[in-house]
Amino acid sequence: MDANRRIERQLTEALVPGATPPLLSLAMHHAVFPGGARVRPRLCLAAAAACGMDDPVLVDATAAAIEMLHCASLVHDDMPCFDDAATRRGRLTVHRAFSEPLALLAGDALIVLAFQTIARAAAHCAHPERLGAVMRIVGDSVGTPLGIVAGQAWECEKRVDVAAYHRAKTAALFAGATMAGAAAAGGPVEAWNAVGLRLGEAYQVADDIGDAISDAEQLGKPVGQDAAHDRPSAVRELGLKGAVKRLEELADLAVEAIPPCPGRAELGALMRQEARRLVPKTLPAHAY
Amino acid sequence: MDANRRIERQLTEALVPGATPPLLSLAMHHAVFPGGARVRPRLCLAAAAACGMDDPVLVDATAAAIEMLHCASLVHDDMPCFDDAATRRGRLTVHRAFSEPLALLAGDALIVLAFQTIARAAAHCAHPERLGAVMRIVGDSVGTPLGIVAGQAWECEKRVDVAAYHRAKTAALFAGATMAGAAAAGGPVEAWNAVGLRLGEAYQVADDIGDAISDAEQLGKPVGQDAAHDRPSAVRELGLKGAVKRLEELADLAVEAIPPCPGRAELGALMRQEARRLVPKTLPAHAY
Repeated sequence: MDANRRIERQLTEALVPGATPPLLSLAMHHAVFPGGARVRPRLCLAAAAACGMDDPVLVDATAAAIEMLHCASLVHDDMPCFDDAATRRGRLTVHRAFSEPLALLAGDALIVLAFQTIARAAAHCAHPERLGAVMRIVGDSVGTPLGIVAGQAWECEKRVDVAAYHRAKTAALFAGATMAGAAAAGGPVEAWNAVGLRLGEAYQVADDIGDAISDAEQLGKPVGQDAAHDRPSAVRELGLKGAVKRLEELADLAVEAIPPCPGRAELGALMRQEARRLVPKTLPAHAY
Repeated sequence: MDANRRIERQLTEALVPGATPPLLSLAMHHAVFPGGARVRPRLCLAAAAACGMDDPVLVDATAAAIEMLHCASLVHDDMPCFDDAATRRGRLTVHRAFSEPLALLAGDALIVLAFQTIARAAAHCAHPERLGAVMRIVGDSVGTPLGIVAGQAWECEKRVDVAAYHRAKTAALFAGATMAGAAAAGGPVEAWNAVGLRLGEAYQVADDIGDAISDAEQLGKPVGQDAAHDRPSAVRELGLKGAVKRLEELADLAVEAIPPCPGRAELGALMRQEARRLVPKTLPAHAY
């Protein structure tokens, strides 16, 4: 089964409504389906595959958990007290489609479901002794002091180090994806940290570029949010051209950081392909 | 060391700011300290002690996690899109003392920190093989389909079964506390479910009574919220006198449900003492 089908199957199974209050269940579903590029869980599966993939049950649960945590952060970030965004992936955001209370609870429920999903997998996976490491990596990549929730909280501070902010807000979950994938597959964990960090930084730069130059229809969400909210951004710091150069450098660094493993060459090729997809085909004239 | 000191020490260690954004760290601290009665973590420790307490590291982490999840739910429930409460435990609520974004993030961070705390303990506890069961119990008691987040979401539905609503909104985390305490101590898990459920139901009834008859200064938070928000309540369903009778019955059922274990008699005495504390000393004249 290919990576995309594994991810969608695992997410679908995790989000079966059962006895969940119907509106909450629908709001959670709206937050997760249809997905975006599923970049983080694919990265998690890719790292696990490169390490040998000897426990697909734990790996699939970990990848799905990473995606649920990402979706939860989007739901909460879109809420009126943050971005107050009306659209996401070309559809209404969860609080617009349902309500603020349901958006708040759907985000909470998805955060918890991520950990429930990994914990449930541990009951019938090949290597339950890996659960502690996987849980620590996933938790640290989302929580305090250095995960995406902390990253979002830097927006509430007067003094912000842009690099630290981006590392926490975006790169931390990418690093969590590669490290947790490696941990679930019994590979070396620390060696995968740099791969995820560099890729995550590249995605954050790509996001900043998208926010600065795209139109809302193309991006599927409101644009110009960084300037409107006076947020740190690679484009504001380096200029548009400098940001594109930085993105390319980061993608190269990510590929170079892949530790020796059976699937190194294949993964490097996949990552270079992804990076090319991120660089805007055409830049507006004012970038030069 | 007594239960209260163990709980405060574990919570204090878990909430060390480190590199966390300062305002987020303060908001999380405000949500957790000074605590309320710490009923849930004490119940978790009591169940573990009754089972034999052969892994205090895992048990303490589990108890603290249960309390963090409770505090997170209070922070989010107090927000403007739910109760819009200005005070809690006699102080400003987190969104009033800090901001809505910081309250939202502090709740998220505490949910994640609960799982981080248990996962970290697993790295140096006596019985890491119990981690999976502890994580599943804790996750299920908070998330979907039957945990406190689902319970809160029933308030967004048109048709609600009051018993199911209370079981999820309050009793689920009490049952999680007893079962996770038993699991962390290597005891029988399912046997502890009924103890927590009955106690949780008793607390919810006590909470409904408090909301109906207390004044705000005594309760430390706004009163009359159930009627104001048209929420299901034992007092609205059974009348004040009926609700007090139900509370006493539930406390008796909880004590009877304690499974055979070394600490059964001691725990039963403690629970009866707690239950007496919950019953209002004087009821207003209109209760009769």
